[in-house]
Amino acid sequence: MSDADLIMDRCDELNAISSRPDVLERVHLSPEHAAASALVGEWMTAAGLHSWQDPAGNRCGRLEGESDGLPALLLGSHIDTVPDAGRYDGMLGVLLAIAVAARIARRGIRLPFALEVVAFSDEEGTRFGNALTGSRALAGTWDPAWWDLADADGITLAEAFVDYGLDPARLPGAFRRPENYVGYLEAHIEQGPYLEDADRRLAVVTSIAGARRFALTMTGSAGHAGGTPYDRRRDALVGASELVVEIERLSKQHRVIGTVGRLQAFPGGVNVIPGRVEFSLDLRAEFDEARDGSLAAITAAAREIADRRGLVFEAREIYRADAVRCDERLQRAIEAGIRATGDQQPLRLWSRAGHDGVAVVELTPIAMLFIRCRGGVSHHPDEHVKRADVAAALDAFEAAVLAVAERHRAAAEPERAEPAGAERA
Amino acid sequence: MSDADLIMDRCDELNAISSRPDVLERVHLSPEHAAASALVGEWMTAAGLHSWQDPAGNRCGRLEGESDGLPALLLGSHIDTVPDAGRYDGMLGVLLAIAVAARIARRGIRLPFALEVVAFSDEEGTRFGNALTGSRALAGTWDPAWWDLADADGITLAEAFVDYGLDPARLPGAFRRPENYVGYLEAHIEQGPYLEDADRRLAVVTSIAGARRFALTMTGSAGHAGGTPYDRRRDALVGASELVVEIERLSKQHRVIGTVGRLQAFPGGVNVIPGRVEFSLDLRAEFDEARDGSLAAITAAAREIADRRGLVFEAREIYRADAVRCDERLQRAIEAGIRATGDQQPLRLWSRAGHDGVAVVELTPIAMLFIRCRGGVSHHPDEHVKRADVAAALDAFEAAVLAVAERHRAAAEPERAEPAGAERA
Repeated sequence: MSDADLIMDRCDELNAISSRPDVLERVHLSPEHAAASALVGEWMTAAGLHSWQDPAGNRCGRLEGESDGLPALLLGSHIDTVPDAGRYDGMLGVLLAIAVAARIARRGIRLPFALEVVAFSDEEGTRFGNALTGSRALAGTWDPAWWDLADADGITLAEAFVDYGLDPARLPGAFRRPENYVGYLEAHIEQGPYLEDADRRLAVVTSIAGARRFALTMTGSAGHAGGTPYDRRRDALVGASELVVEIERLSKQHRVIGTVGRLQAFPGGVNVIPGRVEFSLDLRAEFDEARDGSLAAITAAAREIADRRGLVFEAREIYRADAVRCDERLQRAIEAGIRATGDQQPLRLWSRAGHDGVAVVELTPIAMLFIRCRGGVSHHPDEHVKRADVAAALDAFEAAVLAVAERHRAAAEPERAEPAGAERA
Repeated sequence: MSDADLIMDRCDELNAISSRPDVLERVHLSPEHAAASALVGEWMTAAGLHSWQDPAGNRCGRLEGESDGLPALLLGSHIDTVPDAGRYDGMLGVLLAIAVAARIARRGIRLPFALEVVAFSDEEGTRFGNALTGSRALAGTWDPAWWDLADADGITLAEAFVDYGLDPARLPGAFRRPENYVGYLEAHIEQGPYLEDADRRLAVVTSIAGARRFALTMTGSAGHAGGTPYDRRRDALVGASELVVEIERLSKQHRVIGTVGRLQAFPGGVNVIPGRVEFSLDLRAEFDEARDGSLAAITAAAREIADRRGLVFEAREIYRADAVRCDERLQRAIEAGIRATGDQQPLRLWSRAGHDGVAVVELTPIAMLFIRCRGGVSHHPDEHVKRADVAAALDAFEAAVLAVAERHRAAAEPERAEPAGAERA
């Protein structure tokens, strides 16, 4: 069986570990999480890694480098899912990381750093509504307020830790130190159609989009649909609708991604003019400046609409993450890895979706490899990747690790890496 | 105490009969309905009327004409309310009708018809979601399917009848016969700002708007807000929002009233492109042709938007009432009544809101008198009418009844009403 076959089979195996009979759902600190973590731990051990679960529930495995106790290159992704999920988002990156470590162990390659593989416990935030808690624990940016977050059954995160067999008091043991890491590489399906459109298998990720999210309210005056002429209406819904159309137009113009995902009109009677609309805005872009510039334009449009219609517009920020740049040197290593598969001009993409790297970058530099997925579909059972693309991704990911090793050695011995005259120039 | 003072006081008394401590809500077949009906019955008796409750829960009172058992001129309105209601919508018309009958009885005027005053039990349809059941029972257009309608607590209309002390099997006793009526007159607050804008107290109603209501659906495809570029999106909410703006524009252009009162996006995640929007359309106009013409334009706009955006648009009609014309002769009587108050060119308005007359017209010709209300506000505690306007309305309503009586006598004796040569021409 080829390495790619093994990875595909393991994606299927993990897909069967679900809290729901027909669709995949596997959330933080659930029995399915424990089962998946144990299985991944077995695969790590089989690959020659020493495996353990950290105090945050992350499944870890370590392969020592040319000497024991060296700083580690971290490879990984996550094994939790959204509801009604696909089988590759997260899991494929974990299995590729294990397969790379297995190859290096099998070939007896001694790297100038250790490899640490991690299967993060909670990237999606499905259960407690707060994404990236696994990787934030690892990065040491845990917020103690999260202990009180409750799931749909009212179970707090702290209680769920105990139920799972973890001790909240020991969580700081999951915090890593920057001096023990040389970087983080993650392979992930693209979750977008750009690779497929370009007829390419792999891409290097340049950055992970920054996102800002707002709760918006447009307030007017409710009234009888029959009795109130147009020149006296303060219809919150027509105003909000104008803004929704403007958000699309301005987002395209500013080359950002603006989405209104939630919208409801109140009081909601068929024959009552809406007096209030509650809606949301999700705004993301490759560059924070573009994102914030489009926000200013959207806010100005909202004010103009509200003034013209006698409405009041309010926006409250509920989430903000600035864009994360992937490390230039690690990007070059990923590019070298893709070139090793025969693609001499690797596609460069920015990630429109968030990833564990957004948290890990607080600990160590990051880079990512994107793998083509069918139709750009993710967070859905139709999520699909080709076996041949997985084979190419494995080759590229392994070559990227070796490229990092080469640069690492060069950096440790600058007199060999630089041209002889460089220091004199 | 003047008649107008008495009417204003009685509006206050009825306002206190509410199922909620701070705001007015009085729904069909509730204990408050029974209390209000009993009180109105006392006032009818005090005015010299014979009073009873009919098998549909309508409170009735009768004053005989110049001989017993004559067909009746029906006067009335309703005593049920919307939630968080004002104190005049409905109640003022009932109290004006009682006051007119009281004056005629007091003055010993013997009319060529009986007067029957009715306080309809269920105009708003607040409890069971189906308006006009009181007046539809009277008109004999009851639909037996309504017995199974349930309120928010799951109590069916049939059960509520029994709880209230009425027998569903005896309902047909509420059906009236056309030959026993000469017409129906209703006084009602305008529920719009036109009288106030024109600085007039009273208006004659030319027609009651026809309304059509639709459940609309725009269906696209849900997707990840980050991963789906604009040229691949099928965002149901942007499409629906375009249509909401178009509905306003087209309604103004066609001089109809189109309102989207209800709108919600699904699945409703902040970072998920809406795959489906459910919304409503309430469309009303003075003339059914204009209403239906605007509907055709709105439907064409919806199809264009859906085609351009790769969406599917569906509309399902959930309510339809065609416009009801007020009877020309009864309109002239209302106009004569308004002229008797000193306004020589009565304003003519069409009613944008529905009224019991929409049901009663199936039994007998109808006409309505509108009374100025502050700011056009109704269905709200701020609903307000001036005492002086109520005094004028009472004079006009009484004069209108006398004008109907005059025409009735003239019609019964055509040789005196027509010029001598008319039949020969």
